[in-house]
Amino acid sequence: MSLDETPHAIAEECAPDTRSRILATAGTYFREIGYQKTTVADIARTLKMSPANVYRFFESKKAINEAVLERLIGESEAVISEIADRPGLDATARLVAAIETLHRDCTRRCETFPRLHEMIEAAMVESWDVCRHHVARITAGFERIIREGVARGEFEAADPVEAAACIHAAIARYTHPLLVGSSSLQPVPPVAAMTAFLLRSLAPRRPLS
Amino acid sequence: MSLDETPHAIAEECAPDTRSRILATAGTYFREIGYQKTTVADIARTLKMSPANVYRFFESKKAINEAVLERLIGESEAVISEIADRPGLDATARLVAAIETLHRDCTRRCETFPRLHEMIEAAMVESWDVCRHHVARITAGFERIIREGVARGEFEAADPVEAAACIHAAIARYTHPLLVGSSSLQPVPPVAAMTAFLLRSLAPRRPLS
Repeated sequence: MSLDETPHAIAEECAPDTRSRILATAGTYFREIGYQKTTVADIARTLKMSPANVYRFFESKKAINEAVLERLIGESEAVISEIADRPGLDATARLVAAIETLHRDCTRRCETFPRLHEMIEAAMVESWDVCRHHVARITAGFERIIREGVARGEFEAADPVEAAACIHAAIARYTHPLLVGSSSLQPVPPVAAMTAFLLRSLAPRRPLS
Repeated sequence: MSLDETPHAIAEECAPDTRSRILATAGTYFREIGYQKTTVADIARTLKMSPANVYRFFESKKAINEAVLERLIGESEAVISEIADRPGLDATARLVAAIETLHRDCTRRCETFPRLHEMIEAAMVESWDVCRHHVARITAGFERIIREGVARGEFEAADPVEAAACIHAAIARYTHPLLVGSSSLQPVPPVAAMTAFLLRSLAPRRPLS
């Protein structure tokens, strides 16, 4: 950082916009070049600003990664919320749709961006709060669907929070970029078979009268 | 490979032993230094042989990795078989013990050897047959336990092969080195809660008379 490098007035005025542009550019680099090979200097150069200006908004590449991941997580969370709110579906159909959608989105992202897993790996090593936050938010979506199913007599779950956490953990093979990305050729049951298996776990113990 | 490098007569006589020593040394390097940084030259130097001699037994580092992984997989398979054969346990107890043991062994290995995941990552990218073989063998152990549970009226599973595959896939978060290694701080339900959730899926639909 050179001392004579004063931020442009325009950046001062449009801080949210600059922040947003940094994240968009960083997101593109992380997905296409990979988290490891991307430098803050690359991001700054593309935006025609100094690295020092990037550091005014984010203290480190790690902090940029966390903000980029927050956006991605927000997208997944919005998808689950939309499904949980979708009218005309029972809880089983909502759970099936939520799992299928998470799986499809993750597979598509990993195929389009083969280096996506680097961002996730970096976060798993050094950004535990982001990971915890992600798990909590997606699991909350599942919990909402499970509680609704219990209320309708469609599901039985003594502890919907735990059931939601188990389902989220059980589908890691289908929705975790570390396993989906490099392992599309590994043998796993079709996601529909896995979902059916997990749904059996939520089925009421006695037949409905 | 230099042309004047003829294999020692002793190596000719003890080919299985030499092969075994190469694998033991490679296994130690892969676990402690990591698959990426280990070279065939390192392995050869430690064994006081030429790289050319190593290549007489294995055509590439990839082939060495596959053989090292086969040994590791054999250990996991033996553990599951021993549990499936253990007298005095019902199928539920066998399934619980099998999942707990796979989880404990994987966690212990990943903690002891933080670079273990590199071997697995390399295999997932380029050694699909080894991965398929691994999944098939571990899943076969689960299938055996599930069939026994069905025969005893303890479990209900229309398709024990698929149920076994689903259980194996569902515990990836607990037994896959790519997720266990770097993510011991990530939030997942305790393995006992996950096992109980999966067992519900196998429970007979109607109460036993």
